[in-house]
Amino acid sequence: MTRHSGDVRSGARTNSGGSALFTDLYELTMAQAYAAEGMENTAVFELFFRELPATRNYVLACGLEGVLSFLEEFQFTSTDLEYLKSLNRFSHDFLERLEKLRFTGNVYAVPEGTVVFPLEPVVQVVAPIIEAQLVETWILNQIHCQSVFASKAARMVTAAAGRAVIDFGARRSHGIDAALKMARASYIAGFAATSNTEAGRCYGIPVSGTMAHSYIQAHEQESDAFRRFMQMFPGTTLLVDTYDTLAAVRSVIHLVKTSGGKLKVGAVRLDSGDLNDLSRQARRLLDEAGMTQVEIIVSGGLNEGRIAALVQAQVPVNGFGVGTNLAVSRDAPELDFAYKLVEYARQPRIKTSSSKMILPGRKQVFRRWRNGCMVDDVIVRVDEHVDGEALLVPVMQGGRRLQAGHDSLKDMRARARQQLRALPPPIRRLVRAESRYPAEISALLLADQIALRSKLDAG
Amino acid sequence: MTRHSGDVRSGARTNSGGSALFTDLYELTMAQAYAAEGMENTAVFELFFRELPATRNYVLACGLEGVLSFLEEFQFTSTDLEYLKSLNRFSHDFLERLEKLRFTGNVYAVPEGTVVFPLEPVVQVVAPIIEAQLVETWILNQIHCQSVFASKAARMVTAAAGRAVIDFGARRSHGIDAALKMARASYIAGFAATSNTEAGRCYGIPVSGTMAHSYIQAHEQESDAFRRFMQMFPGTTLLVDTYDTLAAVRSVIHLVKTSGGKLKVGAVRLDSGDLNDLSRQARRLLDEAGMTQVEIIVSGGLNEGRIAALVQAQVPVNGFGVGTNLAVSRDAPELDFAYKLVEYARQPRIKTSSSKMILPGRKQVFRRWRNGCMVDDVIVRVDEHVDGEALLVPVMQGGRRLQAGHDSLKDMRARARQQLRALPPPIRRLVRAESRYPAEISALLLADQIALRSKLDAG
Repeated sequence: MTRHSGDVRSGARTNSGGSALFTDLYELTMAQAYAAEGMENTAVFELFFRELPATRNYVLACGLEGVLSFLEEFQFTSTDLEYLKSLNRFSHDFLERLEKLRFTGNVYAVPEGTVVFPLEPVVQVVAPIIEAQLVETWILNQIHCQSVFASKAARMVTAAAGRAVIDFGARRSHGIDAALKMARASYIAGFAATSNTEAGRCYGIPVSGTMAHSYIQAHEQESDAFRRFMQMFPGTTLLVDTYDTLAAVRSVIHLVKTSGGKLKVGAVRLDSGDLNDLSRQARRLLDEAGMTQVEIIVSGGLNEGRIAALVQAQVPVNGFGVGTNLAVSRDAPELDFAYKLVEYARQPRIKTSSSKMILPGRKQVFRRWRNGCMVDDVIVRVDEHVDGEALLVPVMQGGRRLQAGHDSLKDMRARARQQLRALPPPIRRLVRAESRYPAEISALLLADQIALRSKLDAG
Repeated sequence: MTRHSGDVRSGARTNSGGSALFTDLYELTMAQAYAAEGMENTAVFELFFRELPATRNYVLACGLEGVLSFLEEFQFTSTDLEYLKSLNRFSHDFLERLEKLRFTGNVYAVPEGTVVFPLEPVVQVVAPIIEAQLVETWILNQIHCQSVFASKAARMVTAAAGRAVIDFGARRSHGIDAALKMARASYIAGFAATSNTEAGRCYGIPVSGTMAHSYIQAHEQESDAFRRFMQMFPGTTLLVDTYDTLAAVRSVIHLVKTSGGKLKVGAVRLDSGDLNDLSRQARRLLDEAGMTQVEIIVSGGLNEGRIAALVQAQVPVNGFGVGTNLAVSRDAPELDFAYKLVEYARQPRIKTSSSKMILPGRKQVFRRWRNGCMVDDVIVRVDEHVDGEALLVPVMQGGRRLQAGHDSLKDMRARARQQLRALPPPIRRLVRAESRYPAEISALLLADQIALRSKLDAG
């Protein structure tokens, strides 16, 4: 995962680094059973979530790129097969088959950076059942985590109301892959930059960052640290809260003013304390010294609520750095995405035992627009036609990526920006909307579900 | 990350897959400044957390192995250096230096599977400041996420009171690395197995899993699916909740009883509905049919609280499968780990501006035991001697791993088991303890902090 090949700067073609063994064991036992039973028909699996978390009005779909790369590269290596053999559960015939197996199916998906709602298929895999089954774990993992990050980041971008938001979260992400995918997803959602250098290289995202408290602490005098850093990096950002924040701001001003134009500072960063009060006082000190161009960046435990409160209070802040609250999406660390069989051998499928409803058969989602705003969505059978924008588009055919599977990060970012702006205002806001966005299920689809359920009950 | 080399079955030596570029940009800008200023002295950084989340009484330290692998392999590749050059922020001299840079420091650490408390150093890095600074992001990321997973998993193991707990979380983890590290950390904490085949291969953890709802749905009749799966995998686990749970249990019984000994089932799995009621009814049906050896496994939205409630209600359940609640550690997705400079050039260091206290200087932690139980801990200056067990042990010297850095997963798992049993009962329990575990700071250490603070205030 950490060595990406291909044109990484485009953001569109990165090696997923994925192993076909990254799957739940039951996918493999089921695959062997399908093979032995001669069940070789086409299956349709759909990925969707059932409910929005209490603190989300929408989800920003993200993570398709990693899925398509994985499917293109899908194959079991000799090491993988050796390991599976060592488990003494799989037949020789089945392992031979796995060796030759590649993903040959079609994929339809909602493009990354699109807003989606409950029960709407985000990814639809149409493939021989063995192939579609084996890739379940990877697809769920990647679409889930990136949609969690993108949805959280979109709220922070909304809260910042045009000010820059920067990803500082790598250290608190759940692992290395999460940190990289968070940087990617938050950039799609509208972040300005990431502190994660590896993510910068992998995806071509702008990188940002200057100094930590340790740099100040390692010097005998804070002012020595400031002076040396400005000498090395003219126009840099200086971290001013290691000891006394306002004393540090005065020290920066003194250094710059007495340097005869030799020292330049671009911004100061406040990472603790009362950010509202301290940013105002810092701004006043800088302005009184004629340093009106010097920006103020704040960080330290920020989430979208705190960002919105600071923006509403009209603090003189130019940018926000966010870490933990983005990295673990603290208020909603998971979405209830599922990857469900909806059709096999051209017959619709459901399950009935619990409240976990599945709508049978292949579907499409149409989104209706008016004056540049989203009005409503309707989830329909794939053979129904409704006016509006079809959200699911073909991105892979016969295991090969189609043009729509080649979006650049720039495309995705522009799409997310346009989508977020087009949301009905109560849905875009941070507080829970009184009425959910209207995403309806077509009458035909509901009738199919009732009919299939009766048939199963009768059977 | 997905291609691990070395003796993976030992669990002790895996390639971290880490890139030296997986670092925050500011680590690199600071490193260039240190180099330019000739700041080449030894720094001591300590990794610790400040506060326990409201729903944790202890943290199970985990993730050291990935840190040591990373430090052993640490180097910038030509691709890394090319990327850094493209940023136009770094000097030619500095990039040349990075090319030759390796980690040459010493590391002291609390062994994986040890219980730790606030302010106790878990990892201590003693190295030239540039090296110690550049590895911050990776060390924090890995110790943080694995300790989050291990601490959550330990609570589930405690709740299960001897019954098996199995990791089903790969699809809901934040990324691929998280899924692998979750499987590893939960195994150390006492889990019986993982569903993640790649984790099984990487770490030699037992793998588990049989069928999903899609397998049942893909067949015309549920009973066909059951029969065929038992034919293929004698003694398998059958998933019985796709349509009507108890009807499915009766169907399994009928198939086995009328097969003339040809069909064998090992367990049934219930994944939805009222698990207390359904497991009792399923047990009764199986027992009445004389199938007393057939086990019952439950899953579906389980966390440690639900497991404890089922165990307390004495449900006839043999094992628990957990997914999302482990994967995102929903009640406590993060710990406030920090990696702080505490000494540079043999001088103790702190920061003072906020409530984020740093205890100055190199430290040690002593744990006192009585009759096989933990009594209390004391955090001391490294030159103090106190009776008890020293928690920080040398694991790396001059960039080379020492014997104590070669623990096997089995060692770590045994240690965690012994540690959890030795906890004072109120600390081991799931509810928040009225009194926190006593982890005190020595008088000398507090005096050092006060003295250093006065000196800084005076300066």
